[in-house]
Amino acid sequence: MRTITVRAPVNIAVIKYWGKSDEDLILPLNDSVSTTLSMDELCTTTTIAIGSDLSKNRFWLNDEEIPIEKRLAKVVDEAKKLAQSKWLDNEFVHICSKNNFPTAAGLASSASGLACLAFGFCKLFAIDDLDTISRLARLGSGSACRSIYGGIVQWVAGNDHQTSIATPIISNDAWPEIRILLLIVDDHKKAVSSTGGMQTSYKTSDLLQHRIKTIPSKVHRIKEAIFAKDFERFAEITMKDSNSFHAICQDTYPPIKYLNETSWLIVHFIHFLNDYFKRNVAAYTFDAGPNACIYCLETFVETLISLIQNLFPLSNNSKLLVNGAKWTQSLGSEYDSLLQDFIEKYRRPNAIKAIIHTKLGSGPQVVSESFDELSLFGTNALPRVYEK
Amino acid sequence: MRTITVRAPVNIAVIKYWGKSDEDLILPLNDSVSTTLSMDELCTTTTIAIGSDLSKNRFWLNDEEIPIEKRLAKVVDEAKKLAQSKWLDNEFVHICSKNNFPTAAGLASSASGLACLAFGFCKLFAIDDLDTISRLARLGSGSACRSIYGGIVQWVAGNDHQTSIATPIISNDAWPEIRILLLIVDDHKKAVSSTGGMQTSYKTSDLLQHRIKTIPSKVHRIKEAIFAKDFERFAEITMKDSNSFHAICQDTYPPIKYLNETSWLIVHFIHFLNDYFKRNVAAYTFDAGPNACIYCLETFVETLISLIQNLFPLSNNSKLLVNGAKWTQSLGSEYDSLLQDFIEKYRRPNAIKAIIHTKLGSGPQVVSESFDELSLFGTNALPRVYEK
Repeated sequence: MRTITVRAPVNIAVIKYWGKSDEDLILPLNDSVSTTLSMDELCTTTTIAIGSDLSKNRFWLNDEEIPIEKRLAKVVDEAKKLAQSKWLDNEFVHICSKNNFPTAAGLASSASGLACLAFGFCKLFAIDDLDTISRLARLGSGSACRSIYGGIVQWVAGNDHQTSIATPIISNDAWPEIRILLLIVDDHKKAVSSTGGMQTSYKTSDLLQHRIKTIPSKVHRIKEAIFAKDFERFAEITMKDSNSFHAICQDTYPPIKYLNETSWLIVHFIHFLNDYFKRNVAAYTFDAGPNACIYCLETFVETLISLIQNLFPLSNNSKLLVNGAKWTQSLGSEYDSLLQDFIEKYRRPNAIKAIIHTKLGSGPQVVSESFDELSLFGTNALPRVYEK
Repeated sequence: MRTITVRAPVNIAVIKYWGKSDEDLILPLNDSVSTTLSMDELCTTTTIAIGSDLSKNRFWLNDEEIPIEKRLAKVVDEAKKLAQSKWLDNEFVHICSKNNFPTAAGLASSASGLACLAFGFCKLFAIDDLDTISRLARLGSGSACRSIYGGIVQWVAGNDHQTSIATPIISNDAWPEIRILLLIVDDHKKAVSSTGGMQTSYKTSDLLQHRIKTIPSKVHRIKEAIFAKDFERFAEITMKDSNSFHAICQDTYPPIKYLNETSWLIVHFIHFLNDYFKRNVAAYTFDAGPNACIYCLETFVETLISLIQNLFPLSNNSKLLVNGAKWTQSLGSEYDSLLQDFIEKYRRPNAIKAIIHTKLGSGPQVVSESFDELSLFGTNALPRVYEK
């Protein structure tokens, strides 16, 4: 029995992926650019075990066994092909995956989950080629191919399975001043899945074809901003592309709505701050849901967190605590009456459930290569929770 | 002293006007198509008096004297030019305007107001050419040029002051089965003005240029649907153009949000109905605010009103009353459990303040040519309310 335990990060796109040219291979209509988040706050850990002692393929997610759906099966099949003689026909696989963040938070875990799986399989079979790992992850979930690298990453749309791969723009230590706040918005509604949503957009949105044409220039410009560590330009392009993506959702028929009133308050708040400080001190981006991802520089983090805690108090008027990385530098948390007026006018208790403070992070890592205490499996290749 | 009292209708666009190629002349970036609403429910009435007894130009709106702002002054100046020797330099004008609907309802009254003014001036000077009236109205408020005609109207963007005019598509009695419900949504926020909003979109939205290119085909197709009285196609093009317009608002930087959660519930409700009945029984359109304008055929009005009253009850569980035209035909107000489930799941008390039921209507009319009881002025050319 061979086993490996790996972990992989979550990524958030600043130039969004929306729409496929090939549903089966998950080839995107356009290039996208994403930030890989630190695994200290958000990651998926996966243990894979393969052996002839196992009688069928099985999968556990967050301690619950669930059926192996189509996309996961595709990655397993493809991994078996890549493994060649290293994976015999009488051998089956057990996979166990866990997120270190609550699924209920509404954070997309498919990118980190499928990146983990692809990385784990490849490492198990001593396949170190990152392009191969990125391709394998893409087959499971398009955006997963970007979680193969740390820092800031471009997914080159390409023309076929071979050419549609992620490539790093900068590593996570090349721009260490970047800070990321995830604001988990309280929302009861079940959103339209991104897979279904982007299919409908592709079929019905007149404007999507135009958006795609604007992407090469946006990717070029945001890369220039990233190389120059020009946060103000990075912020503007990021916000505009988030808006463009949600405009395509609005132009879809029937229209798709991912943002709620709290999301919009965050949008207005960030624009208010940028006007107030006369420069882009922060940027928002929203994926297929109401949660906000806010970028700022470390010098602004304390002020921003303090403002957000004031704008979104808990109902008992206590402060929402911040999960994640400590912040050290500070411009002070004092702010004047104009800012205070905005906050008092728009204050929205209980609208945000959690704040996660994080940074850019590295790509996937091997955690363990045996059934030791770091593995999610016991020596029987069953989740440890079953042993109790 | 010469006087005239006229009234003019409100219009709602189904292919939206958004963006100007000339701010001064109000030349639009694209053609638009609108429905003129019956004056039985919604209209502006205006009395104009001109004479050498008056010592300055004055304006009253809904019984309150207000300063003559730039756009109104422009219409007065242009009317004076058109009048030539019929308006002497020692003569001044008093204007009094009233809406028969509450301003607080958030219904745009600038179209009916400026159409009224343009029509009144021209009639006073025996100018009957509708192109001239439409041009004059446009100078006051772009969309006002469409309120010069009844039925369904196209505003041809044109290239200059001469060619940018409205033209009728069908008269209001050519498609008498069309019914219109205005749902006045409760909202506390002050929206971005459409004038400011469209300027910002023009400057910042990448997608606006593409939207403009799609309009000629949309106008062609909706006119075909209108001539064929094909409600289902009319409905689809109407909903898609409303979505396209709000997509441009979302793509504007900073993004503009006109729809609130109630507006979105109406969108989802109409799509649910159209799916349920397996044909487009109703269509929504939204202007620069959260209020919905719903189109349906008269056979569906009773069912639709009953459903809306159930979805949006008053807080004391009483029914919201319907203002406006009576409805006579009916498919019955019974509906099955699937519809009832939707309503119970999404019911939103107090979210709608009023329902106005109306039809297509005629263009502006002369109400009175003397200071009789139909005039808003007494013989001193002051609002009657001043006489009490």
